[in-house]
Amino acid sequence: MTRYKALIAYDGTAFAGFQTQHHTRTIQGEIEKVLTRLNAHEPVIVQGSGRTDAGVHALAQVIHFDLSEDFDCERLRFALDTQTPADIAVTHVTSVSADWHARFAPHEKVYEYYLEHSKVRSPFHRLYRAHFRYALDLEKIRLALQLLSGTHDFTGFTASGSSVEDKIRTISQAELIVIDDENVKFVFRGNGFLYKQVRNMVGTLIKIGNDRMPVSQITKILESKNRKFAGPTAAPEGLILKEVIYLENQSSVKIQNE
Amino acid sequence: MTRYKALIAYDGTAFAGFQTQHHTRTIQGEIEKVLTRLNAHEPVIVQGSGRTDAGVHALAQVIHFDLSEDFDCERLRFALDTQTPADIAVTHVTSVSADWHARFAPHEKVYEYYLEHSKVRSPFHRLYRAHFRYALDLEKIRLALQLLSGTHDFTGFTASGSSVEDKIRTISQAELIVIDDENVKFVFRGNGFLYKQVRNMVGTLIKIGNDRMPVSQITKILESKNRKFAGPTAAPEGLILKEVIYLENQSSVKIQNE
Repeated sequence: MTRYKALIAYDGTAFAGFQTQHHTRTIQGEIEKVLTRLNAHEPVIVQGSGRTDAGVHALAQVIHFDLSEDFDCERLRFALDTQTPADIAVTHVTSVSADWHARFAPHEKVYEYYLEHSKVRSPFHRLYRAHFRYALDLEKIRLALQLLSGTHDFTGFTASGSSVEDKIRTISQAELIVIDDENVKFVFRGNGFLYKQVRNMVGTLIKIGNDRMPVSQITKILESKNRKFAGPTAAPEGLILKEVIYLENQSSVKIQNE
Repeated sequence: MTRYKALIAYDGTAFAGFQTQHHTRTIQGEIEKVLTRLNAHEPVIVQGSGRTDAGVHALAQVIHFDLSEDFDCERLRFALDTQTPADIAVTHVTSVSADWHARFAPHEKVYEYYLEHSKVRSPFHRLYRAHFRYALDLEKIRLALQLLSGTHDFTGFTASGSSVEDKIRTISQAELIVIDDENVKFVFRGNGFLYKQVRNMVGTLIKIGNDRMPVSQITKILESKNRKFAGPTAAPEGLILKEVIYLENQSSVKIQNE
């Protein structure tokens, strides 16, 4: 039995999210279908670094899975890439030690949130960027981002009913980048993000930028841990999981030629 | 009655092409539905600068139409933009003289053809760029583009059975632009393009770049006027109508504030 690590990109538009659920089209489900065929029809379970929600994209989600047979990594990548649907791409496959785990190996994640800030919404960006046509004060958004940066209890930014107990997370990068006259992106890097945390932060930041909440609202949400003080959950299509960065002391990873 | 000129952008993916046909979803059909509502349910006909095929996109297609009532152009634009589906955007509306015609007013068109030239096809480009994973000699493509430039009878590059009689057209720009390591685009500017001409030229250029046809094949196709010598029709998703440039002496156009 060999354990493989793979990098995958997907357009989340037509998926009910990453994780397998009955009777819905999921990224995990589509990949498991192909892997099970390649594994002589013995069921294969795909484990991701984390889930992404319906409509959310990934440029480099990381997964692992076990196969009975030893495959050449590039052949396996090609088979997976070409046999999965066109909205999933498999960009890298390597073999890893049997105890390596995409979710539990220590890592940081980088999420980006793309926002088209224009009068007319582009038909070409509509599936990959959220849209906002009203005024935005980017300086206020930048001040609010500074308040989000660092180690906080993010309870107030997660969806209620989440089962995770420890809601303290560290955000090491929280940035607003102007792409051009009509497009900006938010970049968040951290050691973990709670369910809907990024979209709830962005929904709040847009309200602050539009002057419908003060910058200090961030502190209020963090301190009160009350979701009711936060803005709405921003639309899923703007969000993309950009990178999963495994920490270097993860020496058990055998990097094979990629 | 007032005649309006509009600039529209559309993602051609989910359309059977620009022109209205029974029982299919077309750009013309979707816009006419909204315009007819705005015109007190009197039918409105939309006239485009030309058609685009199923799956082909437009950044700035030009249309005209007549409405019984006088509308404020920006209000009309907003109503059209927000009432048409999200894969159509209406970016500008102006009123024009009653004899102005999107198709018959002298103009040049700029088409671009996007080609992702990479090992793995990006899920995010799959609807907007064609994909080619094999070797391409860009210098050979550039030499071939020089042979396409100028005034020629393009019969050999059009779909057989086309009803247009005069197949002489002038291409004033035929260029290959490298976007990045994995993406190139072809730019064609000309006074008119025959049915499937751009896609047939690109299909031939890719064969030449891949060394499966000599550069001189272009001359052979132009001189023989025989479609059989040309390459296959390139995929529609790579093609976008970028701009329609009306000639300046078109002084009958009343440009209203845009």
